[in-house]
Amino acid sequence: MNYSLKVSVGRQGLYDITHKVADVVAGSGVNEGLVTLFVRHTSASLLIQENADPSAQADLERWLNRLVPEHDPIYTHTVEGPDDMPAHIKSALTATSLSIPLADGRLMLGTWQGVFLWEHRHHRGDREVVVNVLG
Amino acid sequence: MNYSLKVSVGRQGLYDITHKVADVVAGSGVNEGLVTLFVRHTSASLLIQENADPSAQADLERWLNRLVPEHDPIYTHTVEGPDDMPAHIKSALTATSLSIPLADGRLMLGTWQGVFLWEHRHHRGDREVVVNVLG
Amino acid sequence: MNYSLKVSVGRQGLYDITHKVADVVAGSGVNEGLVTLFVRHTSASLLIQENADPSAQADLERWLNRLVPEHDPIYTHTVEGPDDMPAHIKSALTATSLSIPLADGRLMLGTWQGVFLWEHRHHRGDREVVVNVLG
Repeated sequence: MNYSLKVSVGRQGLYDITHKVADVVAGSGVNEGLVTLFVRHTSASLLIQENADPSAQADLERWLNRLVPEHDPIYTHTVEGPDDMPAHIKSALTATSLSIPLADGRLMLGTWQGVFLWEHRHHRGDREVVVNVLG
Repeated sequence: MNYSLKVSVGRQGLYDITHKVADVVAGSGVNEGLVTLFVRHTSASLLIQENADPSAQADLERWLNRLVPEHDPIYTHTVEGPDDMPAHIKSALTATSLSIPLADGRLMLGTWQGVFLWEHRHHRGDREVVVNVLG
Repeated sequence: MNYSLKVSVGRQGLYDITHKVADVVAGSGVNEGLVTLFVRHTSASLLIQENADPSAQADLERWLNRLVPEHDPIYTHTVEGPDDMPAHIKSALTATSLSIPLADGRLMLGTWQGVFLWEHRHHRGDREVVVNVLG
């Protein structure tokens, strides 16, 4: 079964979608199986990361922004703005799809793991994540 | 069900396999479920990226080639040629497996998403991608 | 079906878990389908890489350690030690989940592919990988 999850995003950064995903999975009625997330964009991606300390998330964003800066003279794909090509590269380095086992109706995330949508552009409205549940 | 997809590659770069994958999935007869791609190599990888403007693909290749250059003195694994160790590193930074939800017999790709095999070596013949379809 | 696989790790580095995963899959009794691995941590990750020549693995580790060094002044998340924030970044750049098709009771790995747990911290005991098998 596939479910569409809308994620409202504003500025560039990590958005915790763990609870939204858990709600979709609970609604599916499946208790045991595999949950796969798929982001339908090429300038946003998925990440499982530490959910406890916001400083870890901030450091991740800063580090990746330094590795993949805007206005790099190597870019020729610039018509959609200076944040577009870095967004494609950041997406390529992180995940477009992620799978999480499901047991007893719960995502088998580790204690410190959260699921994030990583918005790589500066100004966006909605993003769509497909949640596939296989029992 | 598993299907073997042969991809003919020549020089290093991105090869759009979206239509080949869609054909395999259509042949499976499954309409709703999950499609998983798996590349059976350690010097080629999988990527979902913008399929509209070739400049985005060219920039991705150039950027990754600069991040992971050949002839880096850090490499000790050099017997298979100067493009071999960079190919392993590039594979590690991108994806060996990718999953795409399937609905109404179609891959649920976003409007601008294409599926690519990324060949990281200079001179190759065939690559093999396994297409797994779960209904 | 989900199985918990404990992986004993010591120092930072790549640990070949191919045979452990194959044993779990054999025990499941499923012959055809999809195997998904999920690591329940944010400072260790999964990788499919060349299993033949240890120099390729050593080069991968050295390269990633240079790209993501300890004591980078950009880090603010430092309370858990100098190897913690680099471990989160390395995990983000590699894989938290990996899927491998299964046929005739065997993982459809390529000839030179091994499955590795990549421990990014210096001193750890056990790590847990969930092995999900769908038939």
